[in-house]
Amino acid sequence: MAIHTRLTERLNIEHPILNAPMGGAAGGRLAAAVTAAGGLGLIGGGSSDAQWLTHEFAEAGNARVGCGFITWALATRPAVLDVALAHAPVAVMLSFGDPRPFAPAIKAAGRLLICQVQDMRHADAALDVGADIIVAQGTEAGGHGARRATLTLVPEIADLLAQRSPDTLLVAAGGIADGRGLAAALMLGADGVLVGSRMWASPEALVHRNLQDAALANDGDATLRQSAGDIARGAAWPAEFTGRVLRNSFTDRWAGKEDALRAVAEELRPAYLQSVADADADRIAVYVGEAIGLMDALVPAGDSIRAMAAQAEELLMSRAARAER
Amino acid sequence: MAIHTRLTERLNIEHPILNAPMGGAAGGRLAAAVTAAGGLGLIGGGSSDAQWLTHEFAEAGNARVGCGFITWALATRPAVLDVALAHAPVAVMLSFGDPRPFAPAIKAAGRLLICQVQDMRHADAALDVGADIIVAQGTEAGGHGARRATLTLVPEIADLLAQRSPDTLLVAAGGIADGRGLAAALMLGADGVLVGSRMWASPEALVHRNLQDAALANDGDATLRQSAGDIARGAAWPAEFTGRVLRNSFTDRWAGKEDALRAVAEELRPAYLQSVADADADRIAVYVGEAIGLMDALVPAGDSIRAMAAQAEELLMSRAARAER
Repeated sequence: MAIHTRLTERLNIEHPILNAPMGGAAGGRLAAAVTAAGGLGLIGGGSSDAQWLTHEFAEAGNARVGCGFITWALATRPAVLDVALAHAPVAVMLSFGDPRPFAPAIKAAGRLLICQVQDMRHADAALDVGADIIVAQGTEAGGHGARRATLTLVPEIADLLAQRSPDTLLVAAGGIADGRGLAAALMLGADGVLVGSRMWASPEALVHRNLQDAALANDGDATLRQSAGDIARGAAWPAEFTGRVLRNSFTDRWAGKEDALRAVAEELRPAYLQSVADADADRIAVYVGEAIGLMDALVPAGDSIRAMAAQAEELLMSRAARAER
Repeated sequence: MAIHTRLTERLNIEHPILNAPMGGAAGGRLAAAVTAAGGLGLIGGGSSDAQWLTHEFAEAGNARVGCGFITWALATRPAVLDVALAHAPVAVMLSFGDPRPFAPAIKAAGRLLICQVQDMRHADAALDVGADIIVAQGTEAGGHGARRATLTLVPEIADLLAQRSPDTLLVAAGGIADGRGLAAALMLGADGVLVGSRMWASPEALVHRNLQDAALANDGDATLRQSAGDIARGAAWPAEFTGRVLRNSFTDRWAGKEDALRAVAEELRPAYLQSVADADADRIAVYVGEAIGLMDALVPAGDSIRAMAAQAEELLMSRAARAER
């Protein structure tokens, strides 16, 4: 028994679960583990570094995986898309920016085009470029995102797809870390889910244990959206996309004071980058979502995928039985 | 057939659905309509005005209803609680503030105590005062609330209750306007839902048609959290509780510029209150949630309740059938 959806059929996978292609964190080892467990693994080509990407595709071995890009960053190094396509990814996901410059090449290469969106305007843009799959990402997600919540964004986009493009699949992202979230997403009209924080807190993720331990020690109240981390690092994120991070000394000092930080960021950058290198979880932006409140230990990615699917299936069956009484 | 949960049993109702006791908007007529449709109606005693409350209990007639208070406002007129208790409400809901001064009287009167919470700290406080039911309200909710999203807050509080107080019931609020949201909430571990915006956009709500029409004409992207409306009106809301409102000329001018507004609020107040009296949907804070994107027409409250229950039941049954293949 398993949960069959249009997503499992279209991707030819066992469980309707993808990992978020978290830039720098979702390498080939994580993607391969997700695929091996029955989901679809996505390598996070966030930084658009060709050498890194080539290395991570190699780390994935022969696993059937896809990859994802930060669209505005890819626009600064567009040739990296060709590097990805040369590896024949199952799918290419574009997030955070205008998909128009890249969608044609992805589709021409015969790859599935996944567009991650944060609001209705983005969803329209994704349909305009012929996205095969739309990932609706809510504000509870870790890392970069925007303002809409998963619980309303998913059904609202489901209604849009029903009207405008019924064959486009829908995946829910943001706040989903266990089978409850998966089952809820299916009820909202999603065909599957994309999971970030739960995959980030796995031994396969390219994340320092210090950061994982700091996140796992906290509950879900301990995150907030800010742009201070991007300013400190010198990353040119568009203003509409803030990053959800763990509350710590860094955010106490700078979150909400982004303008003040901007004035001194260059001066502070060497120290900030040293703290990044040191994996000092108190002094840097630690990108995780509200779902850390649903997690208390590092778990191998494959174990999480299988547990999510089993729990969701059990919930769907038992709740239906109760509805029937 | 119907959806049976611990909430329907405890409240002796047919559908696990409560209306949000929206201050000023959820009067006796709305509460009675919700109860008549098989949910539990709650009168919104937000402003803590004894005369208004007495009038609205009369409007509810013989319907079995409860009522809700804005806790910090009730603290300024604590005697209004006695007015409510004299009407033998099924339950009294406390939101936004310290429940300790009021919980003992509610429980001593034999009424169910409902505490609405916005984060884990609030949930602990609700358990400390012996709440019978906790409403976990996510940031996608209309009107006042805080930062956590429904999708993560509900399961995290479910885990807390399982550990600390298994007999306390859990209700999800924020972003729920149809059967998809109800079914999702049940998957997340809730025993039922509390519905604001969908009830606000009903003919029974004490809301001017101008405001309802303005909200219904927009999608879910068109709301934001702010405190400008409270400052303009002169309401002393604690800083942690912002209000989700419709984006309009008022929020374009003042949302995010609350400090500047504070400096001129007294001067602008007469004009603002005149706009409130005129129900000018472009010049005042219009308190609605992201769920407006799931609604396109004014619907009688009872019809919405019945449709939500039927849709949720159908989803639970059909998804389970598909999981079984």
